[in-house]
Amino acid sequence: MIRATVIGSVWSSRHIDGLPPGAFLEVQPEAGTPIIAFDVLGSGTGEQVLVAQGSVAASWFPGAPPPVDALVIGAIDPASPSTLPGQSKSAA
Amino acid sequence: MIRATVIGSVWSSRHIDGLPPGAFLEVQPEAGTPIIAFDVLGSGTGEQVLVAQGSVAASWFPGAPPPVDALVIGAIDPASPSTLPGQSKSAA
Amino acid sequence: MIRATVIGSVWSSRHIDGLPPGAFLEVQPEAGTPIIAFDVLGSGTGEQVLVAQGSVAASWFPGAPPPVDALVIGAIDPASPSTLPGQSKSAA
Amino acid sequence: MIRATVIGSVWSSRHIDGLPPGAFLEVQPEAGTPIIAFDVLGSGTGEQVLVAQGSVAASWFPGAPPPVDALVIGAIDPASPSTLPGQSKSAA
Amino acid sequence: MIRATVIGSVWSSRHIDGLPPGAFLEVQPEAGTPIIAFDVLGSGTGEQVLVAQGSVAASWFPGAPPPVDALVIGAIDPASPSTLPGQSKSAA
Repeated sequence: MIRATVIGSVWSSRHIDGLPPGAFLEVQPEAGTPIIAFDVLGSGTGEQVLVAQGSVAASWFPGAPPPVDALVIGAIDPASPSTLPGQSKSAA
Repeated sequence: MIRATVIGSVWSSRHIDGLPPGAFLEVQPEAGTPIIAFDVLGSGTGEQVLVAQGSVAASWFPGAPPPVDALVIGAIDPASPSTLPGQSKSAA
Repeated sequence: MIRATVIGSVWSSRHIDGLPPGAFLEVQPEAGTPIIAFDVLGSGTGEQVLVAQGSVAASWFPGAPPPVDALVIGAIDPASPSTLPGQSKSAA
Repeated sequence: MIRATVIGSVWSSRHIDGLPPGAFLEVQPEAGTPIIAFDVLGSGTGEQVLVAQGSVAASWFPGAPPPVDALVIGAIDPASPSTLPGQSKSAA
Repeated sequence: MIRATVIGSVWSSRHIDGLPPGAFLEVQPEAGTPIIAFDVLGSGTGEQVLVAQGSVAASWFPGAPPPVDALVIGAIDPASPSTLPGQSKSAA
């Protein structure tokens, strides 16, 4: 997964069939170019989120897998340390 | 998914079996080298599109998955903001 | 998919089971390092080809998917424009 | 797989359904940006781990594949040489 | 697939279940950072090998797919040309 920040959303009136209910969010990874991730959590601009990529994003949906290759799987708690070497807290 | 602009198309008279009806479009991502995405929407040069990559592109097709690893899943509405931090519009 | 040029081939006398009949071609993408793509079309050095990557390459083969992650799916017609913005020809 | 060092963990109180028991660890690959890998081994900060990426990470779990695209599959033994050309030790 | 050179191996005494018999080899691609590929051929340090990446690496194994995302599928014959434009030899 990658850590990314929601920076906007895109709309597509003309699209192929099979898209589930949700939003296409534009998210900025920690490095590189923004990507578009599908979101079912109602994430908002500025939020830090966890994004899973590849076919696992599609497999999460029940029924026929939709053609989405990136999915917001959670909001990152603000208290989560960013990348601080030396910490030993474990997540569950 | 990535945001890309259609810049052309490629033709392949000699190809393997199993390709569905549609077009091979050359699309330019926001960064990096152009890729070839399969298109069933009739997208035209200059259009901004959403491209899904990997096996989800093939899984979208009914029947045996064709050997395509990138699919145009929608045209991006011109009104969609590009990457403007601070906006809060949500897409559906 | 990516557009690439065939630049050679590799031979592997000692390999794992499950490889289908065909050739391992070394192909040069438009940018970056050469990759090895499996070819069943008899493509030759210097030809421009379309290469699909990932599990869709393996899924194309009947029966148990072979351990190949890149497949030449077609030769690109010489008349195909490279990356000329402004054209509107559609491929089928 | 890649070799990476655990540098922290992230918490997500608000997340989608289907996440298995375990932790989201932030790991630093040998090059590039940190990624988030799922961990079921209780790996700690500073440990060197092997991370598998893509759908194989999800397929490892029994039942419906969870939406995780990176999994810590093992701790790397401290005695493991890093990248020393010339050695011939084989691992099992 | 990519062409890579075996540069070492890694050991993992503490690992998740489901790993098949074989070795984790550290291999150096033609460009970029070393990756860890699973090997069932007994490849040795200094050998040039073909590595398949992604879920096809796991699908090759019988039974439940193990959590490995890179597999050595063959040794490259020393006679194989590297990347010599102009040659027309075909591999089978």
